[in-house]
Amino acid sequence: MAGNHGVVYLGPNHVEVQAIDDPKFENPAGKKIEHAVILKVVSTNICGSDQHMVRGRTTAPAGLVLGHEITGEVIEKGKDVEYLDIGDLVTVPFNVACGRCRTCREEQTGVCLNVNPSRAGGAFGYVDMGGWVGGQAEYVMVPYADFNLIKFPDKAQALEKIRDLTMLSDILPTGFHGAVMAGVGVGSTVYVAGAGPVGLAAAASAQILGAAVVLIGDMNVERLKHAESVGFQPVDLSKSDKLEDLIEAILGVPEVDASIDAVGFEAKGHGAQHAVEAPATVLNSLMSITRAAGGIGIPGLYVTEDPGAKDKAAQQGALSMRFGLGWAKSHRFYTGQTPVLKYSRALMQAILYDRLPIAKIVNATVISLQDAPRGYHDFDAGVAKKFILDPHGLLGKTA
Amino acid sequence: MAGNHGVVYLGPNHVEVQAIDDPKFENPAGKKIEHAVILKVVSTNICGSDQHMVRGRTTAPAGLVLGHEITGEVIEKGKDVEYLDIGDLVTVPFNVACGRCRTCREEQTGVCLNVNPSRAGGAFGYVDMGGWVGGQAEYVMVPYADFNLIKFPDKAQALEKIRDLTMLSDILPTGFHGAVMAGVGVGSTVYVAGAGPVGLAAAASAQILGAAVVLIGDMNVERLKHAESVGFQPVDLSKSDKLEDLIEAILGVPEVDASIDAVGFEAKGHGAQHAVEAPATVLNSLMSITRAAGGIGIPGLYVTEDPGAKDKAAQQGALSMRFGLGWAKSHRFYTGQTPVLKYSRALMQAILYDRLPIAKIVNATVISLQDAPRGYHDFDAGVAKKFILDPHGLLGKTA
Amino acid sequence: MAGNHGVVYLGPNHVEVQAIDDPKFENPAGKKIEHAVILKVVSTNICGSDQHMVRGRTTAPAGLVLGHEITGEVIEKGKDVEYLDIGDLVTVPFNVACGRCRTCREEQTGVCLNVNPSRAGGAFGYVDMGGWVGGQAEYVMVPYADFNLIKFPDKAQALEKIRDLTMLSDILPTGFHGAVMAGVGVGSTVYVAGAGPVGLAAAASAQILGAAVVLIGDMNVERLKHAESVGFQPVDLSKSDKLEDLIEAILGVPEVDASIDAVGFEAKGHGAQHAVEAPATVLNSLMSITRAAGGIGIPGLYVTEDPGAKDKAAQQGALSMRFGLGWAKSHRFYTGQTPVLKYSRALMQAILYDRLPIAKIVNATVISLQDAPRGYHDFDAGVAKKFILDPHGLLGKTA
Amino acid sequence: MAGNHGVVYLGPNHVEVQAIDDPKFENPAGKKIEHAVILKVVSTNICGSDQHMVRGRTTAPAGLVLGHEITGEVIEKGKDVEYLDIGDLVTVPFNVACGRCRTCREEQTGVCLNVNPSRAGGAFGYVDMGGWVGGQAEYVMVPYADFNLIKFPDKAQALEKIRDLTMLSDILPTGFHGAVMAGVGVGSTVYVAGAGPVGLAAAASAQILGAAVVLIGDMNVERLKHAESVGFQPVDLSKSDKLEDLIEAILGVPEVDASIDAVGFEAKGHGAQHAVEAPATVLNSLMSITRAAGGIGIPGLYVTEDPGAKDKAAQQGALSMRFGLGWAKSHRFYTGQTPVLKYSRALMQAILYDRLPIAKIVNATVISLQDAPRGYHDFDAGVAKKFILDPHGLLGKTA
Repeated sequence: MAGNHGVVYLGPNHVEVQAIDDPKFENPAGKKIEHAVILKVVSTNICGSDQHMVRGRTTAPAGLVLGHEITGEVIEKGKDVEYLDIGDLVTVPFNVACGRCRTCREEQTGVCLNVNPSRAGGAFGYVDMGGWVGGQAEYVMVPYADFNLIKFPDKAQALEKIRDLTMLSDILPTGFHGAVMAGVGVGSTVYVAGAGPVGLAAAASAQILGAAVVLIGDMNVERLKHAESVGFQPVDLSKSDKLEDLIEAILGVPEVDASIDAVGFEAKGHGAQHAVEAPATVLNSLMSITRAAGGIGIPGLYVTEDPGAKDKAAQQGALSMRFGLGWAKSHRFYTGQTPVLKYSRALMQAILYDRLPIAKIVNATVISLQDAPRGYHDFDAGVAKKFILDPHGLLGKTA
Repeated sequence: MAGNHGVVYLGPNHVEVQAIDDPKFENPAGKKIEHAVILKVVSTNICGSDQHMVRGRTTAPAGLVLGHEITGEVIEKGKDVEYLDIGDLVTVPFNVACGRCRTCREEQTGVCLNVNPSRAGGAFGYVDMGGWVGGQAEYVMVPYADFNLIKFPDKAQALEKIRDLTMLSDILPTGFHGAVMAGVGVGSTVYVAGAGPVGLAAAASAQILGAAVVLIGDMNVERLKHAESVGFQPVDLSKSDKLEDLIEAILGVPEVDASIDAVGFEAKGHGAQHAVEAPATVLNSLMSITRAAGGIGIPGLYVTEDPGAKDKAAQQGALSMRFGLGWAKSHRFYTGQTPVLKYSRALMQAILYDRLPIAKIVNATVISLQDAPRGYHDFDAGVAKKFILDPHGLLGKTA
Repeated sequence: MAGNHGVVYLGPNHVEVQAIDDPKFENPAGKKIEHAVILKVVSTNICGSDQHMVRGRTTAPAGLVLGHEITGEVIEKGKDVEYLDIGDLVTVPFNVACGRCRTCREEQTGVCLNVNPSRAGGAFGYVDMGGWVGGQAEYVMVPYADFNLIKFPDKAQALEKIRDLTMLSDILPTGFHGAVMAGVGVGSTVYVAGAGPVGLAAAASAQILGAAVVLIGDMNVERLKHAESVGFQPVDLSKSDKLEDLIEAILGVPEVDASIDAVGFEAKGHGAQHAVEAPATVLNSLMSITRAAGGIGIPGLYVTEDPGAKDKAAQQGALSMRFGLGWAKSHRFYTGQTPVLKYSRALMQAILYDRLPIAKIVNATVISLQDAPRGYHDFDAGVAKKFILDPHGLLGKTA
Repeated sequence: MAGNHGVVYLGPNHVEVQAIDDPKFENPAGKKIEHAVILKVVSTNICGSDQHMVRGRTTAPAGLVLGHEITGEVIEKGKDVEYLDIGDLVTVPFNVACGRCRTCREEQTGVCLNVNPSRAGGAFGYVDMGGWVGGQAEYVMVPYADFNLIKFPDKAQALEKIRDLTMLSDILPTGFHGAVMAGVGVGSTVYVAGAGPVGLAAAASAQILGAAVVLIGDMNVERLKHAESVGFQPVDLSKSDKLEDLIEAILGVPEVDASIDAVGFEAKGHGAQHAVEAPATVLNSLMSITRAAGGIGIPGLYVTEDPGAKDKAAQQGALSMRFGLGWAKSHRFYTGQTPVLKYSRALMQAILYDRLPIAKIVNATVISLQDAPRGYHDFDAGVAKKFILDPHGLLGKTA
């Protein structure tokens, strides 16, 4: 390491690339740790959940180093790291997890009990997630490395597929978790709410899980066009506020077997209502169009507090849900941060054997670390792209 | 059959026992059917969900014959009934199910697609559930008899245990479904909201599923005392509006592994708020006290429309849910009518082998059919009893 | 119906197409039934398990009408058939199942308790499976029709895809069951023993379940070539008797995540031993090459008695299994007839939405009913084809 | 530590308590490790699988320190141990597991990929299981301590229940795993083969899982009497070689829902054949008496090689299994070392809340470390006792 630079949140709609501290073998409480590695970051993506912070919808403090979608090369390791070597290329699940608590032992690394003093669950570069420094940077420290990291078996092959493999750190498993939880299986008809990168990853996941057909709804025409171009059935939500009618026009029936909310609490109304923020609108519409005894996977983020919400109840994280409708249809609802590690290996194998062209599906677009502010801006404007930052210029051609 | 009598809903807080039609081999649409049996009703219970109708909280029409918790003896059978004989004593799941549609084939008999033209799922004697005549009567018709009915292997033994076995038609499997869906297993700590019969059945179910300890919360002192007397830890909700404090006082930690909502949409506030109807209060409190990665089983009824609600949103079935809290803890929510048949046989075996003294746990109390109006009244007043009607005086001593 | 013709087993290696009785609304015990339909057979396939009978390896009596892979059109129905109409095109699961017993209610239609007096489980046209008349014929009777049959939603569309849809009656769900039971999921490496139609169906199933790579082993060069041509990795078992070496040469590791036995009791030795019948050889080799904690799905048939076996123990259905090896690796073994109905709908949807080109994968080849004896002969000789009989000339071009 | 003593295997039927080395922070390859703790052994049990070694049925070398059922107090810890403190009382799963490999991450700690160079899976004090020193000693080293160990929340309470809690290290979870894998649930009828400690633990597990009735078979009259005295139905296998008849005499039907093999490869014939070793006899009889679609859990040990077997095939670990019978009944078979950690916490909670009196059920009997040779001898002779060694005299009264 000869200095380190990272993307720093400075205030609403204001991020900059700045010099930041070199990573240390130390946890956020300042305790020395030997189970960590230092990674040279090979790729690190901008995520929709970063946008919640950057838009000022959270209590993220100025100075926070962003970034939780990280792929990197091990350049240093602590004494307790036994199964990784210098030079290994690894994917980093966005969840920080200890691998030693009850929930980690049960594959629920999204709610690790040890890495965040204020609540269950930790993450890199995220407000309220334990204070772990983010990885939209040149170098980053990853704790509990033997447990958390998955090494790519063939480094050269992995570098060739790095635009796909970089999606393993978050959006691919997050979409996959949504699809699995929703009960997507062979022959399912599936609806995904939201055609951003997580929605596309959920759609791709439904596809590889064997779905018969995958519909994806949004109001952003560019994103819908892209979704269609990679094989999904677009549903233009600006056309009607009755989602069931739009579904029926495509499938011949107004319901699907399984549905996935890849939008979350910043949802807006459909049809004529589409200018208005309506935090329960996606959940309520999914109850309308999911079959009786069906499942609803909810990888989209819902927050405990939303000071920026227009609605008073929503500010306290309360949504006006048509829960009775879901109850009448015996729905199941699955929420929460994805336990990425549960899926990393399987999805890596699917990519390595050319079964899951996720880079193409999410329209992966490489930019330099310096261009991160532009990436944040364009992504917030709704372009149909997933931005990959390339801190060391290792990924070849950038956009 | 020499005439038939049944409990008839006549208007808010008004039920009477009246002469009713003899059951016929005919479905609600008037079509002749050969897959049905006529039962002489041996026992039939008053259910908390009947109370929703009797209190006038639904659109149930005057004249509706009530009753969906039925045990009986086969006295006539259609030509297509192959595996039941005259004289067989059987338990009747409250769901009417065809056994031939997609959901029935998948063990989801709570949302059968064929028995109710207006929505998925049918039941006996219930508004909007397909028009099947209720069984708080001397005789009742049960369609798709080979599929729906479970015969007790030894009639004499079954009659001896009839106070227990009568709970198989609804509340025992309903409580069990809640517990199973919540993820209760060996060693679990469990909280059940509501100490009425379904709550007690959920608690008993948690017990036989191996729970380490079962807490049960209510504001009704008599019900709490009874719950304690049959082995559960009572939680008096009138003492505090912070459920987590009450839990911590008992377990040493403020959370449980799994929780069950046995209350539903007629929930009232806790602590000082307890006079006020607050339809989301149970759900919100369960999110507070269920551990990260835990499950919430919701057998308590939530309705699509609640014209009698005080709250405008609640009238349209919309609840103000703190969904962000559940999301932050990776909760799962399971709703819907219980598919009784999925559990009937297992629970019957547990009763027949003396593993599950459900009659004692719910304080089963036998009364005559004629006394049904009094039973409705007392149950509504909150007595710690589960009333069994005994239309033919076959159950011995009545209360 | 103007007479009926069917394929009749007359003795070892001797089948003929003969005039047979018209189907009746009557079960094998001679009881009149109203829950059945009569089908005009649109397609009916020759199955590898038919070969066990035709080779004389079973106690099948002369005169038995063969055929359990049936697709047809409803031309008559009993009074209790409520959800099917004359003219409907339906797929027939090979298992005869009542839909009313404990195992059918639990989706285990492969071991229905009511349709075969001598043991659990029934089938059409098969020795010891309850005496139900086979469907390699012009017309056939199917009991419990509402429960057993799946109607294709669009008849014209279905007829266009009939070469694919005809595989729903047995080999596709059988291969799928093997894959599901073996634990195949997204990213799995999979080995299938046997490149006949069931093996190919298992491989196709692994593929749609998301497998990273599917290997398929056989000693028949023609079948291996075909398997490779449709996208699987061929493993030529004549090259070595150490399967782990052959696997390692392809994958770089000597083990797979999941394996499937699509051969059964007529297995032969590998490598130099390949002339010799060795009934446990597949099972033992799968234990060698399946990873620790992996699963082994065994759709291949093993019999309780095998009078034609060379080995004395094998005649009594006893195999010399290296069970300690499986135990040391914590293997799971799943056996039995596939409960087809559990998978019919999902696989139908996958075919109708063009996700599963099973006809191409198994090299579906249409021949006339009259040509059935030739089909049996060629199939027994090991051609890489799956023969579909076309009793009414409805499938267009035949081979 | 002031010196260390342990139980040492010296040859067939010869164990002695000898001075042994103090435990070190070092793995069997001699590498220094910081993730370990040193325990003062509070209790350590003699296990049936130790007997396989002591009888000379394995290749265990003279000098091996025995013992894999360990409960102890942390007296030293490495630098990487973050969540355990000096003085903590902990249960030690018998499997040594790294917590960092694929199988450990998936809760399959019985086949950890990192702790045993020769195969998947490690254990303390056992031949071929990685060379980890056994814990029938005063002190023992446990690696990967944060991951492997479960701390009892209240030390004083735990010491009071130590005769129960000591069973958490192996036989209780092993019996439980067998029951869970066999599919035991509420209302199941269950048969356990073998009334030794693991059989009793399986029976106790079936009970807490909600089984309706638990049968347990053996030929040892003393063990059968004990089993009956703690609530199970004894099946005396010396009475008949047709197990189905013995079952029918008790249950009225010749089959059970689920069965568990707690015997393993040293099985002997039933009835008149009972003097003869017959390694497949238990497995074959379980296929006879397990219902169609039922499961068979096999915690009983089967070995890859058994040089001491009388039967030539059995010497190579090959058994003559009636696999066709299991296939005809759609059985599932689950094998392998139990992943103890998966169950530790749940079973601990059940014990701490007085739901699972396992000490009484297995007839726990405390003896001093010095008396270990006598314990081995008596246990081998078939007494109905489970011996707990008490190296530091902390458990009070000994036998």
